[in-house]
Amino acid sequence: MLKSKEYTSTSLSQLGEFGLIDHLTQHIKLTQKSTIKGVGDDAAVLEVKDQQMVLTTDLLIEGVHFDLSYMPLKHLGYKAVMVNLSDVYAMNAQASQLTISIAVSNRFPLEAIEELYAGIYLAANTYGVDVVGGDTTSSTSGLLLSITAVGHAVAEDIVYRSGAKPTDLLVVTGDLGAAYMGLQILEREKEVFKVNPQNQPDLDPYAYLIERQLKPEARKDVIELFKKMEIVPTSMIDVSDGLSSEIMHLCKASKVGAKLYEEKIPLDPAMINVCEEFKLDSTTITLSGGEDYELLFTLDQKDYDAIKGNPNFTVIGHMTEEKEGAHLITRANQQIKLEDRGWNSFEE
Amino acid sequence: MLKSKEYTSTSLSQLGEFGLIDHLTQHIKLTQKSTIKGVGDDAAVLEVKDQQMVLTTDLLIEGVHFDLSYMPLKHLGYKAVMVNLSDVYAMNAQASQLTISIAVSNRFPLEAIEELYAGIYLAANTYGVDVVGGDTTSSTSGLLLSITAVGHAVAEDIVYRSGAKPTDLLVVTGDLGAAYMGLQILEREKEVFKVNPQNQPDLDPYAYLIERQLKPEARKDVIELFKKMEIVPTSMIDVSDGLSSEIMHLCKASKVGAKLYEEKIPLDPAMINVCEEFKLDSTTITLSGGEDYELLFTLDQKDYDAIKGNPNFTVIGHMTEEKEGAHLITRANQQIKLEDRGWNSFEE
Repeated sequence: MLKSKEYTSTSLSQLGEFGLIDHLTQHIKLTQKSTIKGVGDDAAVLEVKDQQMVLTTDLLIEGVHFDLSYMPLKHLGYKAVMVNLSDVYAMNAQASQLTISIAVSNRFPLEAIEELYAGIYLAANTYGVDVVGGDTTSSTSGLLLSITAVGHAVAEDIVYRSGAKPTDLLVVTGDLGAAYMGLQILEREKEVFKVNPQNQPDLDPYAYLIERQLKPEARKDVIELFKKMEIVPTSMIDVSDGLSSEIMHLCKASKVGAKLYEEKIPLDPAMINVCEEFKLDSTTITLSGGEDYELLFTLDQKDYDAIKGNPNFTVIGHMTEEKEGAHLITRANQQIKLEDRGWNSFEE
Repeated sequence: MLKSKEYTSTSLSQLGEFGLIDHLTQHIKLTQKSTIKGVGDDAAVLEVKDQQMVLTTDLLIEGVHFDLSYMPLKHLGYKAVMVNLSDVYAMNAQASQLTISIAVSNRFPLEAIEELYAGIYLAANTYGVDVVGGDTTSSTSGLLLSITAVGHAVAEDIVYRSGAKPTDLLVVTGDLGAAYMGLQILEREKEVFKVNPQNQPDLDPYAYLIERQLKPEARKDVIELFKKMEIVPTSMIDVSDGLSSEIMHLCKASKVGAKLYEEKIPLDPAMINVCEEFKLDSTTITLSGGEDYELLFTLDQKDYDAIKGNPNFTVIGHMTEEKEGAHLITRANQQIKLEDRGWNSFEE
């Protein structure tokens, strides 16, 4: 895992920018009927009749958001797409187009960039999204990805952060904290590797956690489920920065408070085990860990029957009047104020 | 010009990412009726009825695309927006929304980022475009901007690179090569400054060239003119990489050839003077210089009367059958094959 892959080496300067773009985009197949024109003009052209469009963008930077010593390039490409699709699904919209911009230093041979794009295209194909544009340039240091995702939905289906009402249920998909603990495992193995490169770590017990970190999946299935169940959340956000700050975002935008019950937070057994191994509190990890890419939403109580017993959903609390604030109710029935501290890349 | 500005220093780590985003977006005013929701949710929401949308994105990287030793941050912000709007106008569409992503190292204080955004907002306000989203993160080195622009037009008005027909006129707006020569002036002054920081250069004779480099304007006015004149070009591209490769792009996409007449290429007198000073051939500069952000388009001959005598437009040649290829016809009536070499940032 930690060994750097050997590539046959084709230098990017040989190809040039136009050559590289042609090379990377030659096999694109467009599948969305809303894509009128993809790569190859000054801009892509899209057409969505009688629907609204959602637009989101993210920047991923080597050394800040990812570490290539344990993040394979193909996984990086896949994950970069997921990060953006997750934002589209968090609007309860269907993702339809992507633009992919990369800046890459000359130290990367063409074959490495091909790996990266293999992951990007795998994600695009799997989720049925068209790559319609982007930019490719050199960087003075390292690798950088900037992805923009477009989606669409009829106006009535779009879910903002701002629609939650007091008494609405607070619901989360999947389980939380595993991606963060996967990162801890990878960081630990990197340190072990530095000391003893011959060490063969047994990572099997951590497979789920590592996969959650290296190859997360955006919850397109949940958006489709909502449609099938004919429910529309009152507010929604994706869990990218940790549960605490996401709840605070919903509270702030919707002008409500919240009660989150510690005992309800969904955890995978592997995540609990590793928290014990690392002597970390699992609740703290879910509150501030991040990168879960699950959906956090609020639901009118009348819709409770639709999600009851569905293993995709866990009711973890409910919204309250704004003046009551946002609190975690611990297993010991203590009230702890939630803080909106997400991940801060500017901290040293 | 070459002195670095002194900023009072507020560190980015104090503010954090959420704080920085709030700070930079607090004064945004949305003006486009197609903007349903701007900054502040998982994605922006846009609605364009009965029109198509165009989408384009660009990456600008310190040390590759700009040099902060002579590019003031406010100008950089302005220019970064222009680069993207120019692509929207090159589709004959109205620009309506932008997303702005920046990665910035801790060496930049908040006040520097405010300067950058002052330029971005100045451009957005001047061109009537809404800033609806983006991402803000730290970088391990230098400054990086990733901008996505959205525009719209009715389907019949959208102009691709691919619609040129043999016998169509080849037309360009404004004049060419000035931005490139402005860059040469700035690079020269930087070298002079290194040797003698006390030197006070007289840059007045170069004001136009430097402005073309530091504060280009996208040709929104031309798109509006087309509407007023009720003409739609048969193909169009913006001149960002130099005339030669842009003509080749139109030829390739439209499956036509082209004849470009050297004597017709529009040059500003200041540009001609500086080419003499630098002992550079002005035609070569226009063919491969880049960053003019003018519009290059083809027009059916029947529309010639509409543009005739209009100082915004210069007919520089005409399209031919594909098999004839693309050539420059020199003043000495020689035929020289055009090459599609644009700027290659991967070259060392």
